Amino acid sequence: MLPLNPDLAATFRPPVMEARRWLNGVSFPPDRPLINVSQAAPVDPPPEGLRRAIADASVTRAEAHLYGPVLGNPDLRETVARTFSDAYGATLRAENVAITPGCNQAFCIAAASVAQRGDQVIVPVPWYFNHKMWLDMQGIEAVPLKCGPGMVPDPQAAAALITPRTRAILLVTPNNPSGAEYPAEVLRGFYDLARARGLALIVDETYRDFDSRDSAPHGLFSDPDWGEVLIQLYSFSKAYRLTGHRVGALVASGARQVQVEKLLDTLSICTAQLGQIGALWGMRNLGGWLAGERQEILRRRAAMERAVAGLDGWRLKGCGAYFAWVEHPFAEDSATLAQRLVREAGVLLLPGTMFMPKDDPDGARHLRIAFANIDETGISALADRLRALAG
Amino acid sequence: MLPLNPDLAATFRPPVMEARRWLNGVSFPPDRPLINVSQAAPVDPPPEGLRRAIADASVTRAEAHLYGPVLGNPDLRETVARTFSDAYGATLRAENVAITPGCNQAFCIAAASVAQRGDQVIVPVPWYFNHKMWLDMQGIEAVPLKCGPGMVPDPQAAAALITPRTRAILLVTPNNPSGAEYPAEVLRGFYDLARARGLALIVDETYRDFDSRDSAPHGLFSDPDWGEVLIQLYSFSKAYRLTGHRVGALVASGARQVQVEKLLDTLSICTAQLGQIGALWGMRNLGGWLAGERQEILRRRAAMERAVAGLDGWRLKGCGAYFAWVEHPFAEDSATLAQRLVREAGVLLLPGTMFMPKDDPDGARHLRIAFANIDETGISALADRLRALAG
Repeated sequence: MLPLNPDLAATFRPPVMEARRWLNGVSFPPDRPLINVSQAAPVDPPPEGLRRAIADASVTRAEAHLYGPVLGNPDLRETVARTFSDAYGATLRAENVAITPGCNQAFCIAAASVAQRGDQVIVPVPWYFNHKMWLDMQGIEAVPLKCGPGMVPDPQAAAALITPRTRAILLVTPNNPSGAEYPAEVLRGFYDLARARGLALIVDETYRDFDSRDSAPHGLFSDPDWGEVLIQLYSFSKAYRLTGHRVGALVASGARQVQVEKLLDTLSICTAQLGQIGALWGMRNLGGWLAGERQEILRRRAAMERAVAGLDGWRLKGCGAYFAWVEHPFAEDSATLAQRLVREAGVLLLPGTMFMPKDDPDGARHLRIAFANIDETGISALADRLRALAG
Repeated sequence: MLPLNPDLAATFRPPVMEARRWLNGVSFPPDRPLINVSQAAPVDPPPEGLRRAIADASVTRAEAHLYGPVLGNPDLRETVARTFSDAYGATLRAENVAITPGCNQAFCIAAASVAQRGDQVIVPVPWYFNHKMWLDMQGIEAVPLKCGPGMVPDPQAAAALITPRTRAILLVTPNNPSGAEYPAEVLRGFYDLARARGLALIVDETYRDFDSRDSAPHGLFSDPDWGEVLIQLYSFSKAYRLTGHRVGALVASGARQVQVEKLLDTLSICTAQLGQIGALWGMRNLGGWLAGERQEILRRRAAMERAVAGLDGWRLKGCGAYFAWVEHPFAEDSATLAQRLVREAGVLLLPGTMFMPKDDPDGARHLRIAFANIDETGISALADRLRALAG
């Protein structure tokens, strides 16, 4: 039998695919279809104009089918630099932006650029399972940091976890799975801690376009030396519904991008051209549309808050962007409950155990609901089904 | 300053991008344009029909923009399984095929599935630089295996390199950079060695569509237990000119694919949908076209062989698929020569040093020519420029 990397063997299988297997053999009547709130994935494709822009590029632009620069197309890199400079009150340049095949890969590259097997990265729990899987598979220890009130982590608690093996602190805001929007001063606290202790601060802002705050979510880029501490990650998948194209970004110092280029070249050579073309078209043409999308998701968030408030024994622990993190009232653990929800309620969601260390009892008590995928009527229907569930 | 993974710092920068920087500040007169034989990259886009198929999918198929299954779309996996079963006289199933974002990532995943930091992989030299870079960045030692006559490696020589830390043997056939087509019995020798010693045999067949032999290049898949030894890698990039879409494949046992899925999910979530749609359209519709492409590349190969035969002091050490591996007659090392070639001959190619360990003197004596990118007239012009080069 060919060898198996023990670090790979030790991590778990992809949660979203595992949850999909729970659907096998279960049928859902037409008047009560499955409510799928398991994955942060737009159900609808991008707007017609973007789809046509990609189609036109396929037919008219030869370079849309050929290799591009490893770190991404200059026009897209420049547009991201300009847009983020405006949003954060900063001076970012194209050389600070790498375009990556999705934000997952941006994280894999960021982590691999700072840490190797045996090192540690501090990660608030609940964590995003793909982050945990990558760290596991690289032999990097994910050190769990419990969140405080509002599912917000505390820099002082993180400071107590730092060891000589710590290389980075990883934050996701707005958070997956809790939905929490970390206050700007909390991010500043983590930034100061990372700078003082010589660590990287990796901030995944995949859901930034759906943040409920109208001001910049943090001011870290205004420090002229931000590149000596910060690596920011972004995804075009949610904003422009481009999940099937795999386009994300990694923002870092020019010096760090020299190292990033090695990983990106080796893993992917370049990011898919049509995806980059679609992302650029979206940034140039869909600003108003995206603002409307954000308003719609904020309405769904409010609906989700009302829905859980009306459920006896359920508690909403975090809510924002695409996700609600809820405590359920049942005696069974969340993994058992999630499978029962498929059969008895026609609801697919992910149990808290998929986002927590095995030894953390909070995993069994919580569920993640990717509510952004369903509209207000769907959220009502979801609440009705949860209410009707037998204890 | 944020930490830097020392394994990442220790590897070299992407050679193709480094070579492109040699062009900075050099101008090429219109009557003597640059001859670029640095990268195995089709110059032309895919055929019109494929480009239209992608465009149609963008407009008419919502799922072309959304997440697909981690291991690839079932229709493409089945088509690869059927096509490869026919080609190799084997019985492959869809579950044996993972679709990956390019063949580079297929290799990264294959290597990470068998080895971790501190392990070793045996790799014939000259090697493909991205393979070496990935192993470096993962802290896996690439153990060089010198090739024998015709640039073919010897299983017995490999046996002598095996240590308790060895996890895999990596072969590329037809080879990058030497062009060598490894005989079926050589592959069988490596396979038997890997099986006997409990190693993985990773065979990268990116250039299989341009193999000069009409029979199957190896019979390894006919062993019913092939999945306990073999991982095969493939690319759609060259066959259908889809380099900008990032689509490849990894063929392995179903059990291995369970592990592959963890890496693929975490790195990429899925392979870009439009690329998969294009690859499938190509496999279904471009068989005759691809056969013509192969004949054209075999003509270019013959032209390349004639061209080097007519150059005093130059020796063709390997030639096939996209590449010629040539020994140059100059006193200077290949890295210096390659940069002089840009300025004095208007030729961009990669020096042997980019494909060899630093301590191997063969690197300085050789050059890689990606001749498939230029036609017979271009190959003649290339030979004229090399002939005219001052010693």
